[in-house]
Amino acid sequence: MKKINFYSGPAILPEEVLEQSQMAIRDFAGTGLSILEISHRSKEFIKVMEEARALVKELLQLKEDREVLFLQGGGSSQFYMVPLNLLGDGETASYFDTGQWAHGAMEEAKNFGKVQIACSSRDQNYDHIPKNYSINPEAKYLHITSNNTVFGTQFHWWPEAKCPVVADMSSDIFSRQLDFNRFDLIYAGAQKNMGPAGATLVVVNKNLLGKVNRKMPKMADYRVHIDKDSMHNTPSVFAVYVCWLTLKWIKQQGLKTIEEKNMRKAKNLYDAIDASSLFEGSVARDDRSLMNVCFRIDKNLSNAATVEEKFLQYANEQGMVGIKGYRTVGGFRASIYNAMPESGVQALVEVMKEFERSAV
Amino acid sequence: MKKINFYSGPAILPEEVLEQSQMAIRDFAGTGLSILEISHRSKEFIKVMEEARALVKELLQLKEDREVLFLQGGGSSQFYMVPLNLLGDGETASYFDTGQWAHGAMEEAKNFGKVQIACSSRDQNYDHIPKNYSINPEAKYLHITSNNTVFGTQFHWWPEAKCPVVADMSSDIFSRQLDFNRFDLIYAGAQKNMGPAGATLVVVNKNLLGKVNRKMPKMADYRVHIDKDSMHNTPSVFAVYVCWLTLKWIKQQGLKTIEEKNMRKAKNLYDAIDASSLFEGSVARDDRSLMNVCFRIDKNLSNAATVEEKFLQYANEQGMVGIKGYRTVGGFRASIYNAMPESGVQALVEVMKEFERSAV
Repeated sequence: MKKINFYSGPAILPEEVLEQSQMAIRDFAGTGLSILEISHRSKEFIKVMEEARALVKELLQLKEDREVLFLQGGGSSQFYMVPLNLLGDGETASYFDTGQWAHGAMEEAKNFGKVQIACSSRDQNYDHIPKNYSINPEAKYLHITSNNTVFGTQFHWWPEAKCPVVADMSSDIFSRQLDFNRFDLIYAGAQKNMGPAGATLVVVNKNLLGKVNRKMPKMADYRVHIDKDSMHNTPSVFAVYVCWLTLKWIKQQGLKTIEEKNMRKAKNLYDAIDASSLFEGSVARDDRSLMNVCFRIDKNLSNAATVEEKFLQYANEQGMVGIKGYRTVGGFRASIYNAMPESGVQALVEVMKEFERSAV
Repeated sequence: MKKINFYSGPAILPEEVLEQSQMAIRDFAGTGLSILEISHRSKEFIKVMEEARALVKELLQLKEDREVLFLQGGGSSQFYMVPLNLLGDGETASYFDTGQWAHGAMEEAKNFGKVQIACSSRDQNYDHIPKNYSINPEAKYLHITSNNTVFGTQFHWWPEAKCPVVADMSSDIFSRQLDFNRFDLIYAGAQKNMGPAGATLVVVNKNLLGKVNRKMPKMADYRVHIDKDSMHNTPSVFAVYVCWLTLKWIKQQGLKTIEEKNMRKAKNLYDAIDASSLFEGSVARDDRSLMNVCFRIDKNLSNAATVEEKFLQYANEQGMVGIKGYRTVGGFRASIYNAMPESGVQALVEVMKEFERSAV
């Protein structure tokens, strides 16, 4: 049976990208060598790195002062690299506390300066994104997480901020059209919409850098990586290669087409949830994520926990992989990133309907 | 024509490892999903991570107090993570300044404490490893680089130190038998003898940790990664997978067999260099690396530079890839890691002989 991959990340990648990755393990760019054993200083790989960076600039329509880096260490490393580079001792940064990773990012900033919580939905287990917020007027930057993977909420509006805005877009980069220049720093682990685990995208307004007065490890200093065209040390060659393939696939599709498809997929699934008397969405409607659709068995059902287990088993038997909700949330989560075809979502909708028919 | 890969890293990998990597991109461990799109929390990947860590313990015959981690960011990130975790403000660490990366590691330590240079061959462009050294008796640790990839020197003895010893083994880990427990911390970028770029091995004596009093980013704190079994955040899944395959290959061969083969390969190549009147080795004989064989055209030749260019072109035409020396060193460098077959070295020896016959 064909499996359908709803993992939240590492996650589904386009079929063409997998095929080309596989071929490059045998022979990369006609070199006669594997992509796994070629020097990062070879002209063939330098071309990949340069094209990948250029594609990011093009797809996000970035201004000249934006620098594009492919680093390692995931979004989690950016949690500390952002304040290390942007927040001086005693200075304040403002954070939207809208999820587990948003909170993690905030905690790391406390090692470098002061943190002000602009708003928080922590006491409601992050089931919404607060519309009321207050940003410290002294804030050096505002940090938001554009899509909260764990809880399935997403920003569909942007806070008014007088300071630079930093966005963790790990789970929704390249999923929709935006004015990306409204952010001064964007970072994203590759393993959702952009490639496999092991590469991290950073887009940074270079005018922001060099203003804090502290010693920094070279590997954690954006300026070092900018100076060396993202090749200060050996990059994660294969991961960057797969990102390059995925970026080419995104360009071929077009961000507009991708966004429209993502909206249709999410609508299909949320409509099915809303029409059901067995399932219910688990977050505020206005904040529903187009990427991670979180739902559960109707809480009012006395045997909800048993039914939940049954559905997980049933869905699994039907080839639906990775729909168990995050451990602190429970229920279900279907991650439907760019590479998820509409037919995959439709298959899940049918499995849900079939289960409901048989369960009732 | 079959290419022979002498790149210094990313570098040659065993044929079987490449084949299995390729298959896992189609279907990983019978999951029906690609290794590039499977969750790091899937039981199939957790098994890979656990086995990879266990194989390191087994192959290096590590004591119980040694923890094994697969991190990201390469050796370069360890340059700062080591002093961040081990060196308190005002405390001193001792460094062997024996090459470009050794020097880089030392520079990073200065951000965290004091650095004492136990010895240096910097003013001779690192053409040897000093035998006279002096380690500060107060040193919290001694740092050495067991093999200097750029220059082609390698430790074949170990300094006497009363403090813990930290070794960057990026370019010779798993290449020879050693008492690995004599080191309290070993780190290595995977991309030479252990796998592709994107994973970094750290072996640390856990008794050393928690003694410095400073705030640390979670991602840079060894204790966080130990607590989470090297899964604090999404690891570099595919790179760890390929490391696991390579470690299984190493176990199959046996470290003793690998060491013997490496000695034969290096002897073959150094013997050819020494027997030649055109080529000469570029480092002290006692310190010659078994991994990176650096040589050049006899300096006394008036047209050495022209002949060097000619040999590079000739060797390239014969399918020898990556033998150009590092830019600050010049000449040639043949990296002959574990996966390089003896026939590959023999092919290079023949190309050198043929060139010498035709050039003279």
